[in-house]
Amino acid sequence: MEPAAAPSQAGPPPLKGVLAPVITPFTGGLEPDPDRFNRHCAWLLGNGCAGLAVFGTNSEANSLGLEERRSLLEGLVASGVEPSRLLPGTGCCALPETVALSAHATALGCRGVLMLPPFYYKGVSEEGLFRSYSEVIQRVGDARLRIYLYHIPPVAQVGLPPALVERLLKAYPGTIAGIKDSSGDWANTEALLAYARDGLEVFAGSEVFLLRTLRQGGAGCITASANVNPGAIDQVHRRWREPSAPQLQSGIDRVRRILEAHGPMIPALKAVLAHFARDPEWTRVRPPLVELPGARVEALVRELAAAGFGMPGLGAGA
Amino acid sequence: MEPAAAPSQAGPPPLKGVLAPVITPFTGGLEPDPDRFNRHCAWLLGNGCAGLAVFGTNSEANSLGLEERRSLLEGLVASGVEPSRLLPGTGCCALPETVALSAHATALGCRGVLMLPPFYYKGVSEEGLFRSYSEVIQRVGDARLRIYLYHIPPVAQVGLPPALVERLLKAYPGTIAGIKDSSGDWANTEALLAYARDGLEVFAGSEVFLLRTLRQGGAGCITASANVNPGAIDQVHRRWREPSAPQLQSGIDRVRRILEAHGPMIPALKAVLAHFARDPEWTRVRPPLVELPGARVEALVRELAAAGFGMPGLGAGA
Repeated sequence: MEPAAAPSQAGPPPLKGVLAPVITPFTGGLEPDPDRFNRHCAWLLGNGCAGLAVFGTNSEANSLGLEERRSLLEGLVASGVEPSRLLPGTGCCALPETVALSAHATALGCRGVLMLPPFYYKGVSEEGLFRSYSEVIQRVGDARLRIYLYHIPPVAQVGLPPALVERLLKAYPGTIAGIKDSSGDWANTEALLAYARDGLEVFAGSEVFLLRTLRQGGAGCITASANVNPGAIDQVHRRWREPSAPQLQSGIDRVRRILEAHGPMIPALKAVLAHFARDPEWTRVRPPLVELPGARVEALVRELAAAGFGMPGLGAGA
Repeated sequence: MEPAAAPSQAGPPPLKGVLAPVITPFTGGLEPDPDRFNRHCAWLLGNGCAGLAVFGTNSEANSLGLEERRSLLEGLVASGVEPSRLLPGTGCCALPETVALSAHATALGCRGVLMLPPFYYKGVSEEGLFRSYSEVIQRVGDARLRIYLYHIPPVAQVGLPPALVERLLKAYPGTIAGIKDSSGDWANTEALLAYARDGLEVFAGSEVFLLRTLRQGGAGCITASANVNPGAIDQVHRRWREPSAPQLQSGIDRVRRILEAHGPMIPALKAVLAHFARDPEWTRVRPPLVELPGARVEALVRELAAAGFGMPGLGAGA
């Protein structure tokens, strides 16, 4: 019952549902671990994720070098994952690096790229941000490029106001494909959802807004907790028109609150996966992040278990 | 009459005085312009700068790719600039990139590197930042590495509190050589100056604190305005013990206020240089920055001229 893709949109049909910003495993030498990465990606795609926003904020992507990102992405595609399910993060501070990563992902056949604005310089103008995206589009010079804008002012500090989104959408209607709104501000997501009519695929940046986003024509969510709770979040997406939807939403909200209460999110997600997969290697983070203290991990796992949380296919864990 | 270098400090004597975070010229295609860059560096070293902090915030370094930085630095050294006068910025978000740039600059014989903390993830712990610098030092693995910490919370948002500086200094006494404090908070600079006794070279991040910094044993300043006003700032450094010092300080403060009033700083500096060098190519900035509007440039130049400001060796400009 999905509406047909708008005739002006070339390429594959829109990606809808739940996407995970895949957490990145590291070896004892703090190098990315491609085998664990590929296994986790396969589990996510088999357990509720419609796609993978690899190299997002929660992937510690901004702690990865360009070569590390390119190598992980190539390895993931070589492992058999369909590139049309991939939305890698490619936005760096420096123009040539955003261009290099975006061109690489596009050439590999990825569904699109999730693009942070350049985030070092603060207080920059809308005009400057418009020029940044324009310059990337010109330099990539590939009609297959699909940009998903990434609005995450709590971390990047540099945001993308709706007026800028509208200007970009009008200037590059085939290229600006969507947006992830991680502002945590429902009013902002609602303002962006007005552009869904024009074909903008709007993803909430957290599952707590998933039901509301879907009801207003949004595409789904790209959310950290999908790394550990993809199935339950996907159920909200699949059943959003059913009477049970609000109850399903409450269930995923509860898990989210537990994760946030014992955060920071990235080491918390890694600790949860390490526990349920019985694989302590997963706990490692790259500096400047640090692992969650043991006592905090215990409390987190205990509360999740009490809430009936589990990760099917990874063993019982507890 | 300078005190002898502390016996525990290997390498060349401390770099003292005024350093410029050199602004970076771009071609019409927004590529770095090595010839203009080298010429400006030569002018700075001949007109008051003791050294060059190339690839600082005001260099738009965070808008430059790794290859662009390496190529500009190699070209600058090839142009005849002594590497012992260079303090290139090398701190990136991603560990392997900070390592690559720091190893490259060290191998070239640079005096040291000015190193931002990883700045994408916010609210990180002191432990995480300590591990970041530690890991860089281990990976570079070169006894010649000299790190100047770069504290600029208004832009990076991630700062380096004095307790962390002390911990790093104790853990790596030969390697942690100095700090640039761009907090704009004199109390913080004063707290850091306490470590000058232990050999830490403390640079104020703005010339407005130069006289106070020198009076408390600091090394000098690394300041944006040194790009256009190096001689007058250097006079404060050379004559800080003389009765005329406060008056000289007032003079450079006045120029600074004019630049700030018509800022943002980076396009303002470029506009001033373009005007006085009669070289409009200098006005270009890379997105996300934008050039200063013409009316603002006119007002800026008019006020500078009224204050008796000039750039010797570049022509009268007006």
